[in-house]
Amino acid sequence: MSRTAAALAVLVNGELRGAENRWIDGVASIEQAGPSEITYIQDEKHLSRLADCRAAAAFLPHRLADIVAAKTPDLTQILVEDPQAAFLTVLEIVRPQRPSCAPGVSPAAFVSESAQLGEGCYVGPTAVVGDDVVMGRNCQIHPGAVIQPGCVLGDDVVLHPHAVLYADVTLKNRVIIHAGAVIGADGFGYRLVNGALEKIPQRGTVILHDDVEIGAGATIDRAMIGATVVGAGTKIDNMVMIAHNCELGQHNVFASQVGLAGSCKTGDYVRLGGQVGVKDHVTMHTGSQVGAKGGVHRDIPPGETWIGYPATPEAEQKRLVFSLKRVPEMRDQLKALQKEVTRLSAELAAAPPPSSLRAAG
Amino acid sequence: MSRTAAALAVLVNGELRGAENRWIDGVASIEQAGPSEITYIQDEKHLSRLADCRAAAAFLPHRLADIVAAKTPDLTQILVEDPQAAFLTVLEIVRPQRPSCAPGVSPAAFVSESAQLGEGCYVGPTAVVGDDVVMGRNCQIHPGAVIQPGCVLGDDVVLHPHAVLYADVTLKNRVIIHAGAVIGADGFGYRLVNGALEKIPQRGTVILHDDVEIGAGATIDRAMIGATVVGAGTKIDNMVMIAHNCELGQHNVFASQVGLAGSCKTGDYVRLGGQVGVKDHVTMHTGSQVGAKGGVHRDIPPGETWIGYPATPEAEQKRLVFSLKRVPEMRDQLKALQKEVTRLSAELAAAPPPSSLRAAG
Amino acid sequence: MSRTAAALAVLVNGELRGAENRWIDGVASIEQAGPSEITYIQDEKHLSRLADCRAAAAFLPHRLADIVAAKTPDLTQILVEDPQAAFLTVLEIVRPQRPSCAPGVSPAAFVSESAQLGEGCYVGPTAVVGDDVVMGRNCQIHPGAVIQPGCVLGDDVVLHPHAVLYADVTLKNRVIIHAGAVIGADGFGYRLVNGALEKIPQRGTVILHDDVEIGAGATIDRAMIGATVVGAGTKIDNMVMIAHNCELGQHNVFASQVGLAGSCKTGDYVRLGGQVGVKDHVTMHTGSQVGAKGGVHRDIPPGETWIGYPATPEAEQKRLVFSLKRVPEMRDQLKALQKEVTRLSAELAAAPPPSSLRAAG
Repeated sequence: MSRTAAALAVLVNGELRGAENRWIDGVASIEQAGPSEITYIQDEKHLSRLADCRAAAAFLPHRLADIVAAKTPDLTQILVEDPQAAFLTVLEIVRPQRPSCAPGVSPAAFVSESAQLGEGCYVGPTAVVGDDVVMGRNCQIHPGAVIQPGCVLGDDVVLHPHAVLYADVTLKNRVIIHAGAVIGADGFGYRLVNGALEKIPQRGTVILHDDVEIGAGATIDRAMIGATVVGAGTKIDNMVMIAHNCELGQHNVFASQVGLAGSCKTGDYVRLGGQVGVKDHVTMHTGSQVGAKGGVHRDIPPGETWIGYPATPEAEQKRLVFSLKRVPEMRDQLKALQKEVTRLSAELAAAPPPSSLRAAG
Repeated sequence: MSRTAAALAVLVNGELRGAENRWIDGVASIEQAGPSEITYIQDEKHLSRLADCRAAAAFLPHRLADIVAAKTPDLTQILVEDPQAAFLTVLEIVRPQRPSCAPGVSPAAFVSESAQLGEGCYVGPTAVVGDDVVMGRNCQIHPGAVIQPGCVLGDDVVLHPHAVLYADVTLKNRVIIHAGAVIGADGFGYRLVNGALEKIPQRGTVILHDDVEIGAGATIDRAMIGATVVGAGTKIDNMVMIAHNCELGQHNVFASQVGLAGSCKTGDYVRLGGQVGVKDHVTMHTGSQVGAKGGVHRDIPPGETWIGYPATPEAEQKRLVFSLKRVPEMRDQLKALQKEVTRLSAELAAAPPPSSLRAAG
Repeated sequence: MSRTAAALAVLVNGELRGAENRWIDGVASIEQAGPSEITYIQDEKHLSRLADCRAAAAFLPHRLADIVAAKTPDLTQILVEDPQAAFLTVLEIVRPQRPSCAPGVSPAAFVSESAQLGEGCYVGPTAVVGDDVVMGRNCQIHPGAVIQPGCVLGDDVVLHPHAVLYADVTLKNRVIIHAGAVIGADGFGYRLVNGALEKIPQRGTVILHDDVEIGAGATIDRAMIGATVVGAGTKIDNMVMIAHNCELGQHNVFASQVGLAGSCKTGDYVRLGGQVGVKDHVTMHTGSQVGAKGGVHRDIPPGETWIGYPATPEAEQKRLVFSLKRVPEMRDQLKALQKEVTRLSAELAAAPPPSSLRAAG
């Protein structure tokens, strides 16, 4: 791609300010954009990153036009409602997605005779589709992905290389499973019998609803009975662990390396930062959030943000952390105070008791 | 399955109380059981979950019969010694395990000519069995599992899809490796030579003893020399990391995302909660436990429970956390006290010294 | 191998002290070496481990000869500059590496017709090499490894079983990727549009420079635009997560289960302990270190060591932790002090004000 700034302004229905004939041949972040590339300034938070910006042009909201012009007078501006959306539109032109794999089953794939594949599916070399699997249309099963018997997939499901579905798992439409993720392994349950751990059978399943995306190396264990459920539109990052019998709501976002113990529940729009850990049977209600590395062992009410280990409401935790930092100073103050009180106490003791004074008087 | 409560009571050798002809066609947890399903009440801790129980029947211990009858008069009771065991017996009938894969090597598997397989083994499509591998009877090597050369497997070993054994690893009888787990990758060891990191050869191995189970995506690294060892009956959850030269005892239970650095040791019956991290060369003695997210950097004596980061004995940590929560309040008290002492000090200074008073007297 | 201590001394150009004809047939750590094995004592820190040492011989530095002789008089000494290096030399003889796989493409591998392989490459059974992949010389692509289209590999690259490279990833010379690691999965980016999470296209790539090693099950996500970069010689342990657009310097060492959020940067020789988590857009400058389980959310200056959650400079954190441990005691002191001040205050109040005293006088 190589287009003028003016042409891009037309493309995204934006308002051009500045040199309109500059050629744009690429897209990049504010810091990394070169002198023939376009970037975007989404909001006030981005302004501090403009210092060394060498970009030719930027998408930005109308309200920032003057501020940005003052900071970077040479930058050609394209004013739009949603700068990120405009940027992504151009990204699609500059860096188009690799074309999807052509439909068809590779001769080097292994597909059971009893499996049913919808139209337009791609099954790559060394992928394995087990007995009685049912798959909708236009699914992409990449090399090495394994679908054990009895799984049911909707339309437009994508399994990246080495994604693994254990038997009898259900994936609804447009679910994406990244490489090495494992859906439906046995929940972690044992009972101690005569000094040895006996496996509790895990006979439930996993259901991932529409538009769920699961990151590379994540694991979603099957329920003991019933189902481990991930609600529609929920996005789960790499190496997240969801234990058996969890039930997640819709549009959740879990960052990398989060771990949920068994039977946790979430409402909708719950957000967990990286490396958060959650105790079993905890419920995080709709709109609640937990900061990175938080350790949650109580239910979180709707809309609250909790942080810390053990996690508490954000304001409480911040007050706590602020106070804790002052503990060394408090120790010094306490010691000084002890000394002072000892001195006062001695001084007062040295004085004759007031009554005797008065008596003396 | 569909049987009367009375028939189930006979099956588990239990004592029936309540309606005996109710048809039971499923099993579920206390909260999820429907009006034709059976659940179980293991002990007093389960009683609080009975509020909205809609189950037709429940297994429970004799001692809880009256309490449960008072809470849920319509529930048919089957009184038994071990409610969970009775429940699992019925689970096996209601939700029988998928039949094991039929013995035989898939034509789409790759098995080296020098590998030796015992009777009754299943090797699925795209599984790879390397040179000189020796495998006992009735092993199940699922699609995509890779056994590198020289590995030795006992009887009844199960490798789920994409489990990987590096060369020369030993798995004893009934070991289960879940999907994507990696046994025997190189330990993480380097030496800094002329400013660059030089790999220290990792020439040891891994030995997993009888009845060990390793979760999906877990990694057990091979020793530098000698062996990384996991004792019989130990169960390790998903995404746990066991570094080189660790030696674990028997019947340990490690929850998900635990990480042990190199050369750690455990006794028997050690339990680690999710996301626990352990420093290298630490020993956790028999019966010790660490709460979720604990960070262990000292040896733990037998039978002790430690929590926190850094981890300390539970009682100590609880006292600490309790105190820390009061630090904001302590700051306020300290300030008030400083003010009061300043006031007292000023007041006392304003008074003539007792000696002068007396002199004046 | 079986050689005399004297022969080993010649081999490593060391100075023999003690019995020279003892036969050595193995190598082991100080604690595990048996009576016909050799070990090594690198420095003073190893001396405490000599108590029960049964080794026949040890490599050690000249300066420790007398101390070690006093502690373990029967131990044959071989004095060298670098005991570990001598030990590794012998290790190579005692436990030689398995021979590399013979060059050649397995008939059970799947290699695209458009892929270009250099001389001497091994491609194992069930490995997949996609369209337009370019591979240098002497690469080893183990069973089940998947290289998606458009990837470029240098010379001597090793992909262990089930390593996955998404499309268009670049690996320079001598890169090693362990089993199940995933390079180039989509970065975790979404925008909320009309209440649903819309995937932000991840069109960048990943570049791993010379001599990078990536542990089993680790994930390095592709950049949104531009590249996620790992500098030459950097070593990354199992299950580490590097999010999109991170740029790591050279010779970094990240222990297991570390997680870096998006757009982090590191200088050279940065070291992170196990389970460290780093906030997005944080820079850790050259020579900085973070202790295990640290949570980093601010830039770390060059050469500093930070610990804790939230992480702060080591000395500050140690002072803090030391102080925090004293909080329970401080509470007691504070209470005692409050009591004492109350007493003093009451006593002073009971006394007539000094002025009235004087007036009385």
